[in-house]
Amino acid sequence: MRIDMHAPILGKNDALAAELRELFAAKGVYVLNLLASPGSGKTSTILATIDGLRDEFNIAVIEGDIASSVDAETIKRQGLPAVQINTGGSCHLESAMMKRAVEVLDLDRLDLIIVENVGNLVCTTDFDLGENAKAVILSVPEGDDKPLKYPGIFEISDAVLLNKVDTLPVFDFDTAAFEERVRALNPAAPLFPMAATKGSGVQEWTSWLGGQIRACQEQGA
Amino acid sequence: MRIDMHAPILGKNDALAAELRELFAAKGVYVLNLLASPGSGKTSTILATIDGLRDEFNIAVIEGDIASSVDAETIKRQGLPAVQINTGGSCHLESAMMKRAVEVLDLDRLDLIIVENVGNLVCTTDFDLGENAKAVILSVPEGDDKPLKYPGIFEISDAVLLNKVDTLPVFDFDTAAFEERVRALNPAAPLFPMAATKGSGVQEWTSWLGGQIRACQEQGA
Repeated sequence: MRIDMHAPILGKNDALAAELRELFAAKGVYVLNLLASPGSGKTSTILATIDGLRDEFNIAVIEGDIASSVDAETIKRQGLPAVQINTGGSCHLESAMMKRAVEVLDLDRLDLIIVENVGNLVCTTDFDLGENAKAVILSVPEGDDKPLKYPGIFEISDAVLLNKVDTLPVFDFDTAAFEERVRALNPAAPLFPMAATKGSGVQEWTSWLGGQIRACQEQGA
Repeated sequence: MRIDMHAPILGKNDALAAELRELFAAKGVYVLNLLASPGSGKTSTILATIDGLRDEFNIAVIEGDIASSVDAETIKRQGLPAVQINTGGSCHLESAMMKRAVEVLDLDRLDLIIVENVGNLVCTTDFDLGENAKAVILSVPEGDDKPLKYPGIFEISDAVLLNKVDTLPVFDFDTAAFEERVRALNPAAPLFPMAATKGSGVQEWTSWLGGQIRACQEQGA
């Protein structure tokens, strides 16, 4: 017995996202929207990404959370501009929140804004923030079946990061099955296995992202 | 710099939830609404709970997922009634979905319905399903800071399960700090450390839940 239902998808967000996208292009700023469950390692992935790219690019971070500013504090300790958005209950960032956060940043001095969305594999899928690319992180402890249960987020992402691969020995995670499930939903997106807190696999990811940023800057120039 | 926003909370769900609550009380059925992130072990916790309580109680399971019916199939292999709700994009179950699922079940023959909500620490918080109790599962790999970032779900839960404690040696998880953060939000809810797939800690949880069901049945009798 199955019951299928469909929630109405909010569309009013998109016009403002398109404006933001134009603004980012005009300013030569590349925006990455980072999506994942709570606890899959978004913040540590951002720290590793900063580490790999800060010599070449000027980076800022926008942190989305229901509550608290612990993540923004972590980023600021790296000496980078960070804006914390507290959604106050909302399960995703929207372009209106993004606009207010962006107003605080000096876009003329930035090459890359990394947006850490609210920890959520569902709601974040539908809300365009004017980003250049979306990346989804899944961590090994969450299980290899997640593309089956949350297909939307894997379909719409431009890159897939498999984090915490250092814990593969202690979890029953079938990497080949995971890759196959991702490929069935999204044949084009590159897949980066990594352990962000250990540094392994991070360079492949930052090389790819750096290439995307450069390509975007060349188009704009 | 922080920006605080607040999303409107849907209230139309509650009248139907109140009706369902009356129906469950009249039929002597205890309903548990199980909340967690994707991959924190909801399904394996349900399997362990069934194992501990099936000799005493007649149990059915309602599985909520965006897509797929893998979890309902798993439950059916235990020889129990299971209804899969596919929300088709919605990030939480609502009482209207619950009502349609309940119509498929024979309430006269049941003592306990376990509802596995969509994997989400945010949206599921606000939607009453007519349940007797909500329990939230956090798994060790997700990190001890989650009560700071997702306070709502810890505040409204009647029990807190800390799952995958067998992986404490491989993660930087401060159990005392986690407990303190939960206590600050919710002094009354019991906290059950467990490893659902290994069976450890499960008995404390099922003893508590069994006691709740019995107390509820005695009130109704």
